[in-house]
Amino acid sequence: MLQSPLIESLIEAFRVLPGVGPKSAQRMAYHLLQRNKSGGAKLASVLSDAIEKIGHCSLCRTLTEEPTCHICASERRAIGELCIVESPSDVQVIEQSGIFAGQYFVLMGHLSPIDGIGPQQIGLDLLELRLQQGDIKELIVAMNASVESEATAHYIQQLAAQNSVVVSRLAQGIPMGGELEYLDSGTLSQAFLARKQLID
Amino acid sequence: MLQSPLIESLIEAFRVLPGVGPKSAQRMAYHLLQRNKSGGAKLASVLSDAIEKIGHCSLCRTLTEEPTCHICASERRAIGELCIVESPSDVQVIEQSGIFAGQYFVLMGHLSPIDGIGPQQIGLDLLELRLQQGDIKELIVAMNASVESEATAHYIQQLAAQNSVVVSRLAQGIPMGGELEYLDSGTLSQAFLARKQLID
Repeated sequence: MLQSPLIESLIEAFRVLPGVGPKSAQRMAYHLLQRNKSGGAKLASVLSDAIEKIGHCSLCRTLTEEPTCHICASERRAIGELCIVESPSDVQVIEQSGIFAGQYFVLMGHLSPIDGIGPQQIGLDLLELRLQQGDIKELIVAMNASVESEATAHYIQQLAAQNSVVVSRLAQGIPMGGELEYLDSGTLSQAFLARKQLID
Repeated sequence: MLQSPLIESLIEAFRVLPGVGPKSAQRMAYHLLQRNKSGGAKLASVLSDAIEKIGHCSLCRTLTEEPTCHICASERRAIGELCIVESPSDVQVIEQSGIFAGQYFVLMGHLSPIDGIGPQQIGLDLLELRLQQGDIKELIVAMNASVESEATAHYIQQLAAQNSVVVSRLAQGIPMGGELEYLDSGTLSQAFLARKQLID
């Protein structure tokens, strides 16, 4: 035993954080104990509070401490457009852009039969019910580019077709400020295939 | 407001950790809420426990939840050698090497008059009392290489001289596996000045 059991437990506990190995965990533990006890106490209490109170929005499944999240509860959002994303942080980044004024549906993951994650686990039964209600005019699928995400997007597309709802996907191409020289060939191919004619 | 107030507070609270900016804090918050609630609850409870119970060892000033740390309390450590370090993590790294079997004295910082950190704030009054007791035969100063640390080491050296205790410092030179080509000139100069004659 190189140090006190309680400090050992604290270092071990910090390793649940993503990207935190033994060295960073030790640094975090010592930093709080030596230099910021009040910040550490605050973190402990907010974290315990959040773990206890935060659940899923009953409409869009995102994380919230209310029964319904503030976006679903807002009367200022267009109800005809539903944007499908994989995680609450995707909602964040789209909200930051300010480009979208409709509502979201958060899968909290993607289909992954190998891990036992089927349509129900990512709330696609809930999504189907919502499509059947007839308010949604367009589904905007804003998924990541992995194979599993593509498969999930395909499944959602079929779901929408069965309920006669228009489906669209975010455009793929060259990112703003991107340099051709450093672009991967997949993105470049997409950009060629989806090229637009310029009109004078 | 882009997300729930409780999630905002949690992200803000994670920013007390060293090296954690807004993006990492958000990633940590979402990770625990989405994927590891039990790990998060454990972290909250251990952290709150540690903040409340961990204080300083009455002999060496390191962090511990006991009145005296396990190294100071151990009967297997030589009491004639006292190693002076700046922080508990320095104790860790020396213990891991297994090279030292004496006791430690942890300054929890270094002299820094500009920040109001004088000899008392880093426990040098406590160290002086200990030197006066006469058990200590050698002080091994294992400080960092910054200007403030050098000044602190110099102060400790005078303290030891007043109490007729031998002082030594860790050797400076080429680190194991170090390549000359990549060595800074300060280290190289030290290695030249402290060179040892080889004996056949």
